[in-house]
Amino acid sequence: MIKTIGYAAESATSPLKPMEFDCRSLRHDDVAIEILYSGVCHSDLHTVKNDWGWTIYPNVPGHEIVGRVIEVGSAVHQYKVGDHVAVGCMVDSCQSCHHCHDGEEQFCVEGFTQTYNSPDRHTQDITKGGYAKHIVVRQEFVLSVPQSLDLAKTAPLLCAGITTYSPLRSWNVGPGSKVAVIGMGGLGHMAVKLAVAMGAHVTVVSRSHSKKDDALNLGADAFLISQDNDSMEKAAGQFDLIVDTVPVKHDVTPYIPLLKVDGTLTLVGQVGPLAEINSVPMILGRRRIAGSIIGGIAETQEMLDFCARMQVMPEVEMIKMQDINQAFERLERSDVHYRFVVGMQASDF
Amino acid sequence: MIKTIGYAAESATSPLKPMEFDCRSLRHDDVAIEILYSGVCHSDLHTVKNDWGWTIYPNVPGHEIVGRVIEVGSAVHQYKVGDHVAVGCMVDSCQSCHHCHDGEEQFCVEGFTQTYNSPDRHTQDITKGGYAKHIVVRQEFVLSVPQSLDLAKTAPLLCAGITTYSPLRSWNVGPGSKVAVIGMGGLGHMAVKLAVAMGAHVTVVSRSHSKKDDALNLGADAFLISQDNDSMEKAAGQFDLIVDTVPVKHDVTPYIPLLKVDGTLTLVGQVGPLAEINSVPMILGRRRIAGSIIGGIAETQEMLDFCARMQVMPEVEMIKMQDINQAFERLERSDVHYRFVVGMQASDF
Repeated sequence: MIKTIGYAAESATSPLKPMEFDCRSLRHDDVAIEILYSGVCHSDLHTVKNDWGWTIYPNVPGHEIVGRVIEVGSAVHQYKVGDHVAVGCMVDSCQSCHHCHDGEEQFCVEGFTQTYNSPDRHTQDITKGGYAKHIVVRQEFVLSVPQSLDLAKTAPLLCAGITTYSPLRSWNVGPGSKVAVIGMGGLGHMAVKLAVAMGAHVTVVSRSHSKKDDALNLGADAFLISQDNDSMEKAAGQFDLIVDTVPVKHDVTPYIPLLKVDGTLTLVGQVGPLAEINSVPMILGRRRIAGSIIGGIAETQEMLDFCARMQVMPEVEMIKMQDINQAFERLERSDVHYRFVVGMQASDF
Repeated sequence: MIKTIGYAAESATSPLKPMEFDCRSLRHDDVAIEILYSGVCHSDLHTVKNDWGWTIYPNVPGHEIVGRVIEVGSAVHQYKVGDHVAVGCMVDSCQSCHHCHDGEEQFCVEGFTQTYNSPDRHTQDITKGGYAKHIVVRQEFVLSVPQSLDLAKTAPLLCAGITTYSPLRSWNVGPGSKVAVIGMGGLGHMAVKLAVAMGAHVTVVSRSHSKKDDALNLGADAFLISQDNDSMEKAAGQFDLIVDTVPVKHDVTPYIPLLKVDGTLTLVGQVGPLAEINSVPMILGRRRIAGSIIGGIAETQEMLDFCARMQVMPEVEMIKMQDINQAFERLERSDVHYRFVVGMQASDF
């Protein structure tokens, strides 16, 4: 049993503060990890505030985890003590349904076990995430961090990275593709970098000019102001895929005409009721709106390997665990370029 | 110049009544058609009532047209006097954009010319549709009616048929596919018959038991009551494609979980603002919502040939032109099994 400490919310309105707890004793297929870096995702904030109504308290968030193996179960041969590893949004699934067999554990018919806020499949204990010093995870859900990756910057790849990589792969983005990205936060900036690295022509769509320089610096080829009707009309019918990363309720109707015939707008940030959509531009162009959620474990490893090979790395701002509540406040007003990462060893607990 | 007579609406609130008008003089590529049968589509009613805000009066509706060639222009070699031909929702397009070249004139970048309520590309005169004795149409938009098709029953294929055939083909429906059809009107009943003829397993989803016998008689394999939560939960994750033919605003959210991962719900009836959609079932299954509109001319001919080969025919109720206003009233309360067809030769003008 590993005694550890994390930052937990006790209710929807209380700030995160230190809480001691025990990680489970290692099962034969478990890997115990000392967490070195933990990314801060908008869904951590949504969960802590119970925005989606399914939060169980006390809640230790965090699903962008990079660390070092400190102990392994008897059946673990893939990892050894000292390895640098990562954990994303999933820590278990049924491993027997056709989706699990296909390597798409995110669609497990029994539902995957989330890294935090989910009942453990054996004990029903509620999982605790990366805002902590340690985590114990079944080996099938542990990822290998390629040597050439910067460990701190790797953390956001585990959610922001895979959440944007997966739809780019699902919709076959590559050289010749025209991709638009809406929203320039943690997810959006990764969507830009990943689509550029895949060889696509990438346009950032934003409400104002303020993010233009940033977008171009991230590698975007073009910038489109959604409030500029002339530019929006000129851009009609141009895009194969729009990755909409905006994490709050908003109207997607103005973006639909930007798609080519058979083009897709994929929602990766907006969870819950959508603002009213007008079907006309969908019908007139056989255009599609689709959801997408993270990616499977195999695809997540593929993404890490791709990022290592192409040196695609998020832009991060390092913080300490004790500063998480201020970081949440800044996240709420989109004041982050582009992802907070908690350095565990530099933090006070 | 062919003098003809049709039934026209003079305003959103006036009943249809006879109106004399001239068809255009034949251009070199035109075909003049004596209309024998004209289907009654819900969009005729929407247009006459100006539900979509784009109606030009006087309006002669009708885009499910079957007739006999009575004259051809000098450059017309495909059709000759006496041939049985059909006209659907389109009568012209630019013929030079990549969509027209691809045989998808419904996506013409200049917009296709609708069979009624559209400016002619040469004269700007507003096109008049099938609720008339004659029509003159460019040869590229005239379809050949296979000999084995019943002429009266062929009419609804030109809109209800192609509108449901096209999404079934776009999403590769065939043996092994599981298809659900929502709405059992003119479009819905064709979706059932066509999907069955393509070899799919077809389920009709309806609000009540009242249409169960009809659905099974049309060839559906199963029937699902959307108000029955247990049955809906059991049916979750089963369908490759849902064809939603409901022609009025409604909430599609309850149907999304019925789709498999990567499944698509295609909207073919609902035009305008959709009721609020919840993104959660879309995200959790990478599920899609897509629009679809009629089909190209080549695909429409393919559909007519398919219906002839498989003897897929709509269920129709024959009416006379002078009864169109009562038919509209019945259509408005869904009191039709399943498509009205006007027999022109039996009508009074």
